[in-house]
Amino acid sequence: MSLEREEPNYFGAGPALLPTSVLQQAAKDLINFQDQGIGAGEISHRSKAGASIIEQTKDQLKELLDIPDTHEVFFLQGGGTGGFSAIVANLTAAHVKKTGKAGTPYYVVDGTWSKKSYEEAERLGYNPKLIINTKDVDGKFGTIPETEKWTIPEDLNDASFVYYCDNETVNGVEFRDFPYNKFPGVPIVADMSSNFLSKKVDVSKYGVIFAGAQKNVGIAGISIYIINKSLLEQATPDELKALGLPVVPIAFDFPTVVKNNSAYNTIPTFTVHIVNLVLKNLIEHGGLAEQEEVNIKKSDALYAVLDKHREIYNLPVAKNARSRMNVVFTIKDGSLDSKFLAEAEKHKLAGLKGHRSVGGMRASLYNAVSLKSTELLCDFVEKFAQEHK
Amino acid sequence: MSLEREEPNYFGAGPALLPTSVLQQAAKDLINFQDQGIGAGEISHRSKAGASIIEQTKDQLKELLDIPDTHEVFFLQGGGTGGFSAIVANLTAAHVKKTGKAGTPYYVVDGTWSKKSYEEAERLGYNPKLIINTKDVDGKFGTIPETEKWTIPEDLNDASFVYYCDNETVNGVEFRDFPYNKFPGVPIVADMSSNFLSKKVDVSKYGVIFAGAQKNVGIAGISIYIINKSLLEQATPDELKALGLPVVPIAFDFPTVVKNNSAYNTIPTFTVHIVNLVLKNLIEHGGLAEQEEVNIKKSDALYAVLDKHREIYNLPVAKNARSRMNVVFTIKDGSLDSKFLAEAEKHKLAGLKGHRSVGGMRASLYNAVSLKSTELLCDFVEKFAQEHK
Repeated sequence: MSLEREEPNYFGAGPALLPTSVLQQAAKDLINFQDQGIGAGEISHRSKAGASIIEQTKDQLKELLDIPDTHEVFFLQGGGTGGFSAIVANLTAAHVKKTGKAGTPYYVVDGTWSKKSYEEAERLGYNPKLIINTKDVDGKFGTIPETEKWTIPEDLNDASFVYYCDNETVNGVEFRDFPYNKFPGVPIVADMSSNFLSKKVDVSKYGVIFAGAQKNVGIAGISIYIINKSLLEQATPDELKALGLPVVPIAFDFPTVVKNNSAYNTIPTFTVHIVNLVLKNLIEHGGLAEQEEVNIKKSDALYAVLDKHREIYNLPVAKNARSRMNVVFTIKDGSLDSKFLAEAEKHKLAGLKGHRSVGGMRASLYNAVSLKSTELLCDFVEKFAQEHK
Repeated sequence: MSLEREEPNYFGAGPALLPTSVLQQAAKDLINFQDQGIGAGEISHRSKAGASIIEQTKDQLKELLDIPDTHEVFFLQGGGTGGFSAIVANLTAAHVKKTGKAGTPYYVVDGTWSKKSYEEAERLGYNPKLIINTKDVDGKFGTIPETEKWTIPEDLNDASFVYYCDNETVNGVEFRDFPYNKFPGVPIVADMSSNFLSKKVDVSKYGVIFAGAQKNVGIAGISIYIINKSLLEQATPDELKALGLPVVPIAFDFPTVVKNNSAYNTIPTFTVHIVNLVLKNLIEHGGLAEQEEVNIKKSDALYAVLDKHREIYNLPVAKNARSRMNVVFTIKDGSLDSKFLAEAEKHKLAGLKGHRSVGGMRASLYNAVSLKSTELLCDFVEKFAQEHK
């Protein structure tokens, strides 16, 4: 039975490509893990081998991101969407513990996903407030306006947290640097689902970083959380109920999850094992410094060829907000969209169709997309422009 | 790279053994799925191939369980524990829609897991009531008392649902037939995590059946729900808030999940694909009729040899409550426990240690545990008894 494949040139937005060598090892481990006679999906999460998968994955994350002792790593099911609900509940419970009051969750809405997260906080009844919705300011998601245009609350003591999405997958918007210093003492929460481990990050600046695995670090089914330990001090269910606040489902209760080393309920061991293998591979290839450099090269190259042919291609995202992970562009003559995709397919370049809500094209250049794949795409983008001048 | 393994004799309680042929196919599909050039964990859940995995899995479940049109199938992350929270929230919202009132959730507690579910309903603030806690009646979990001993509410109109666990994995207790007729008009909710697809079930009798995949149908990371469609008619978040009721996280909101064909948030496609392959294998091997017959043979054989040597082995579960999936027993001379396990290991019989809260032994005879494996275990149990008389 063959485990070989031709190296794919796949630019899908996620679930995304993973290194072939990682998948080959995972495939083998699915049948027989560490010569135990059974596979990594069959072992108990409470066995020595199961627990060591969790530990190794945590340790490698700590190494890669240089996570300080002030912070803890844990895993949850439920994806980014589960995180939207879990974060507002947990950080409100932490705020109640600290101040006796529910406080107010603040949101920076810079695209589709932070908007969804804000709406979920509203739906659950936490009365979130907007610091900015970039669409209201600029008519579309595609910019990161200067902080002069943000509505920053005067009383930061009431802020239970400030939330933003570090990379908006759908809109191709990415923060280069969040203005942390505008929110002294307030936990900053970042959704890094689609750029996690694509670059170095100063973890100490964050209350919570969370990321679904299925872009840079694994297959769908597990999310990674890095939390400042002080946010694990939370009000009890009874204290929350007394304030008329909801209680979070126990599988989403961060203190419970951390206390049980991410295995309060059955953790998807095989899915975590894939993350473990991806991290090992990343470390062996020079860690985040090396990976970030490659990611910059890839996105620079693609933006350059698109910029060169502005008569053909439209780039809807402002330069200072351009994502290195998700390069969004349209063809000015929209009737050429399907031709572009069909010819790309002929060149074995796949997964380039834009999100259904945005249209056009999107080339996702996640960690596992090689420089070589990106160069092939750049060549095609150039060729297509030449042919349609 | 070899994908072979010696057939394991593994009796772990879950995550559990899966058919080797299924894992081999899954391993191949992890690298290159249906000749798409990328693996089943890398394709988009919204692609044709991704959506067809979800559809096929649903269709095969409908076929195997003969699910009537009154019921819908969907998938959630979060395991059984996520289900404890999601079910009480969703069924309360359905009850509010129907009656304008929150109603009362009723629980039959017959072991560790139904107890946890009851406690979660309490923790979330839904004021659940006990119909019976078998430990209160008999001093331990290990019996299913006659309904004369149950406290069945006189006003069933107030009952939002009646909940029970069809097979208690930790305690080795299984219902042969739930007394549905005692609760006319009330949705019956069954946690079938550890005996799902081990036997035929009359789905029409249930409001909700739910099951984590990691026993009979797959690896950890996905749960299967079968719901009476009428329970998808639910009060809005605003209507719930007006009654002081919590709103469920959107990833756990059954109507939202169903409307989006289980892909409101990123569904773990590869994990569902494994379920899909397990179901295909089950159908090819005669479906539930055949599987149930084998499961009866396996558990009858093991209970018989244990019963034969009651001077050595103790069986804590009442005969009418004996689980076919999890055979719990202890050795009367507790000092022999570790010897039993060590000698079993020498005979390549693994995963027999009882749950840490109960002690002793537990042999889980899930679908993928072969009759041959079970016979080897029976031979060993006999031999050990002969040697320690």
